[in-house]
Amino acid sequence: MTSSASSTRAASPNGHGHAPTPPLPPTTLKQENAALAAGIPSVLSNSETYSLLALTVACATVLGNTVRRDDGAPLTASLALSGIAFAATYAMIRWLGPSFVRAGIKGADLNKVQRRTLPECMGAVCAVVYLLAIIVFIPMPFYKDIVAATSGGGNRDVVLPEIVPAAHVEQGRLLHRFPHSKLASFLSAIISLQSITLLGIGDDLFDIRWRHKFVIPAFAAIPLLVVYFVDFGVTSVVVPTPLQPYLGELVELGPLYYLYMTAVAIFSPNSINILAGINGIEVAQSVVVAALLVFNDALYLLAGPYPHPATDSHLFSLYFLLPFLGVSLALLVHNWFPARVFVGDTYCYFAGMVFVVVSILGHFSKTLVLLLLPQIANFIYSAPQIFGLIPCPRHRMPRFHARTGLLEPSVTAWLPDRQPKPPIVWALRLLARLHLLRMTTDPKNPEIIQETTNMTLLNLWLVWRGPLREDRLAIEIVVMQTLVGLFGLFVRHRLALLIFKEDNLGAVGY
Amino acid sequence: MTSSASSTRAASPNGHGHAPTPPLPPTTLKQENAALAAGIPSVLSNSETYSLLALTVACATVLGNTVRRDDGAPLTASLALSGIAFAATYAMIRWLGPSFVRAGIKGADLNKVQRRTLPECMGAVCAVVYLLAIIVFIPMPFYKDIVAATSGGGNRDVVLPEIVPAAHVEQGRLLHRFPHSKLASFLSAIISLQSITLLGIGDDLFDIRWRHKFVIPAFAAIPLLVVYFVDFGVTSVVVPTPLQPYLGELVELGPLYYLYMTAVAIFSPNSINILAGINGIEVAQSVVVAALLVFNDALYLLAGPYPHPATDSHLFSLYFLLPFLGVSLALLVHNWFPARVFVGDTYCYFAGMVFVVVSILGHFSKTLVLLLLPQIANFIYSAPQIFGLIPCPRHRMPRFHARTGLLEPSVTAWLPDRQPKPPIVWALRLLARLHLLRMTTDPKNPEIIQETTNMTLLNLWLVWRGPLREDRLAIEIVVMQTLVGLFGLFVRHRLALLIFKEDNLGAVGY
Repeated sequence: MTSSASSTRAASPNGHGHAPTPPLPPTTLKQENAALAAGIPSVLSNSETYSLLALTVACATVLGNTVRRDDGAPLTASLALSGIAFAATYAMIRWLGPSFVRAGIKGADLNKVQRRTLPECMGAVCAVVYLLAIIVFIPMPFYKDIVAATSGGGNRDVVLPEIVPAAHVEQGRLLHRFPHSKLASFLSAIISLQSITLLGIGDDLFDIRWRHKFVIPAFAAIPLLVVYFVDFGVTSVVVPTPLQPYLGELVELGPLYYLYMTAVAIFSPNSINILAGINGIEVAQSVVVAALLVFNDALYLLAGPYPHPATDSHLFSLYFLLPFLGVSLALLVHNWFPARVFVGDTYCYFAGMVFVVVSILGHFSKTLVLLLLPQIANFIYSAPQIFGLIPCPRHRMPRFHARTGLLEPSVTAWLPDRQPKPPIVWALRLLARLHLLRMTTDPKNPEIIQETTNMTLLNLWLVWRGPLREDRLAIEIVVMQTLVGLFGLFVRHRLALLIFKEDNLGAVGY
Repeated sequence: MTSSASSTRAASPNGHGHAPTPPLPPTTLKQENAALAAGIPSVLSNSETYSLLALTVACATVLGNTVRRDDGAPLTASLALSGIAFAATYAMIRWLGPSFVRAGIKGADLNKVQRRTLPECMGAVCAVVYLLAIIVFIPMPFYKDIVAATSGGGNRDVVLPEIVPAAHVEQGRLLHRFPHSKLASFLSAIISLQSITLLGIGDDLFDIRWRHKFVIPAFAAIPLLVVYFVDFGVTSVVVPTPLQPYLGELVELGPLYYLYMTAVAIFSPNSINILAGINGIEVAQSVVVAALLVFNDALYLLAGPYPHPATDSHLFSLYFLLPFLGVSLALLVHNWFPARVFVGDTYCYFAGMVFVVVSILGHFSKTLVLLLLPQIANFIYSAPQIFGLIPCPRHRMPRFHARTGLLEPSVTAWLPDRQPKPPIVWALRLLARLHLLRMTTDPKNPEIIQETTNMTLLNLWLVWRGPLREDRLAIEIVVMQTLVGLFGLFVRHRLALLIFKEDNLGAVGY
């Protein structure tokens, strides 16, 4: 909803404000000039080209080696693919930037002295590279199973004869089971991620109203839920110890469980989409959440007894998160202050859906909720404006002060004859007293409210910390997100012992 | 490559030339005016609204009834969903038309006196509706299996204990096998179709060069081939009877089989994309191919002994083709002469990939090749221009003659000092003598070639039949496609007996 790109697509490019780039060979100068006209550099510098090439070659070598091994070493392969995905995204963002601008997929950066026109929706490039990487990755976790089964002419379900002699069964040949539901999870995750990418691009192209946008992730979650229904159907949750005498160890939620998953699927992408509005914030927060999820996976894989019952879930999670980190970091380089590209709603939806996919299929959606605490706080704090109790301007992102070059909280103005209703006034005054809002009243008549700051976490942070430069604000928010997330994981693994019999990091099933 | 939409996106709308629409209620007049400015009607007439609503309600009722049945009646459900998909596509094409034009996704219709600006890339709407319908459909073919397994707490692969008493196995409880590879086929097909849609939209937005475009379907085929590799791995083909003494009944093609599948995957979408250029032709030819494939499926399901070994493959094919017919017919209504929307490369790729998906996963890719004979002929005939032996103008579609309102073959002009090289001259003269080309020579010096018609099936048809109106040409091509396809199916099922032991419509495996 809040976006640092204006929707005035007709805005003409008016210069660019990047750090000076090194001199270029004459052959690329023409391209570079064309790109500069669009406000962004499209050519990779020599050092960038060589670094990306070196990275790609190194990763491809590692990948080639894993394929030759018997077990396939899928985690190593995933890391190598993530490196390649980083390089591909980095290069493609540069190469495609001018095409995006030409196709009218662009926006103006409002928080700068010179409002440069930048390519929008670069999250789509990330998403496409990511999807290709994941699709190529599909066979790798199944390498062992394919090798075990190929002599039998494929992995079709072998129809057991009516009566199987016990000895035959014991022999094991017929017992080899291809992990079909693992494959189905993989495929359904890919379908959900492709759906959100398609719908996100539609959103970015057509400026859908936010009331409609809000349900977009629900559509994209359908494949995930359908395959969950068809192939797993486990809808019971572990009951906290104090309640076990009344409810039993497990409680069957049935359809409620699908409702819960849908809620997570809707919330995660949207919550990232509304903690937005300054350069780099959408990508940086997503990188932090992904990194914390990777850290959590690593805890299970390294700290617990091996093989932990949830090993597969957390490997699955890593296979999806590592390439995500690869493409996101490549985008972050270009979207960090001063931004050279915008990410678009596509990226926010896509990132949120990656988290949904790994946490639902890995059965740790509660952990995800913990890691999204700042986003939840932002959503709750924003709710009065989102749901129209308080007027909501089109852009609620912090206001740029051209003279100081700093960001200040943006405000909602209240005309003397259009004051809020008494309960709203009371609530606003309470929030202001609690330092959760800055309110300006008429110096002559303190009863009349002139301005209140817009209710987003970014504005609130500026109320607390005073005017900040755009990158400084982004860094502080990201550090806060990291600390809150680490604390969340600590709570998850240490304090869970108080209400559950054991932390599932220990031994019991997840 | 050849497209009836010019690539001059800046072209301003200049009137519209549709049949008069009935008077509208005043509330919708404002919308209608905005849409007229863009050259297309965006509002559904009352009769359209009621018809679509009635269709939707009827189909939803049928769908509701099938869900309540024990076996789920997936074929009936698929038919009902296809009806809903038709209605949804029909309405969304109207509603979204003006948004597409506003977003700059538009093109001018060159084959009309008034070059109207129409929304482009409406195939994307089809594809998204189709994908949603197919995703919602996923559980239905598995309804029986889900019901059979739910009491066991989901369909996770049950790990057989090391030694299973034979009696236990006989009991059948553990023997219930969820048809995992059927589900994996479904999901991989969806991933391939989503991939082609994403890449097709990218193509339509960014005008990718055709040399690059050509491989787009190969990327989209990866998920299909990967899942084929992981989950089936059957790469042997039946050997024609005369060769069986030398090769055996089956010959293992190994990696060659994947190469063959990739070739089909690249060819089918591209061949539809190059038999294009006049209103309605892309959709109409796709509808014919889909209908013939449905007819072929019906032959297996109705004529053969029941249950035919290939029943599942052909049901699978119907589940994918029926909704495709639904969305395509809705598009055809709007794309038929005089077109109100363009379909975009997205549609051509998407349609071609639907055929690839059903024929590869249904193991009847040879039948698909038979049904695409006119497209193959068009490709071979076009090859000299596509591969640059003969100059290839940007648009090779038939030329519109404004005075007669008829289409004539478009031509490549040869300047007296830039005549083709001797072998090309020889080939062009041969083609002209065989009536496979129209050549104009200098009346004073018959050695000098002035013009040759562009080498596409549409131009060749006009050479044979003389100038035709745009819709007449489209109808004739579609009728030809239908007759060739029916003959192809006849050959497939009757003459196959000459080289194979039996037609697989009879009894032997597919």
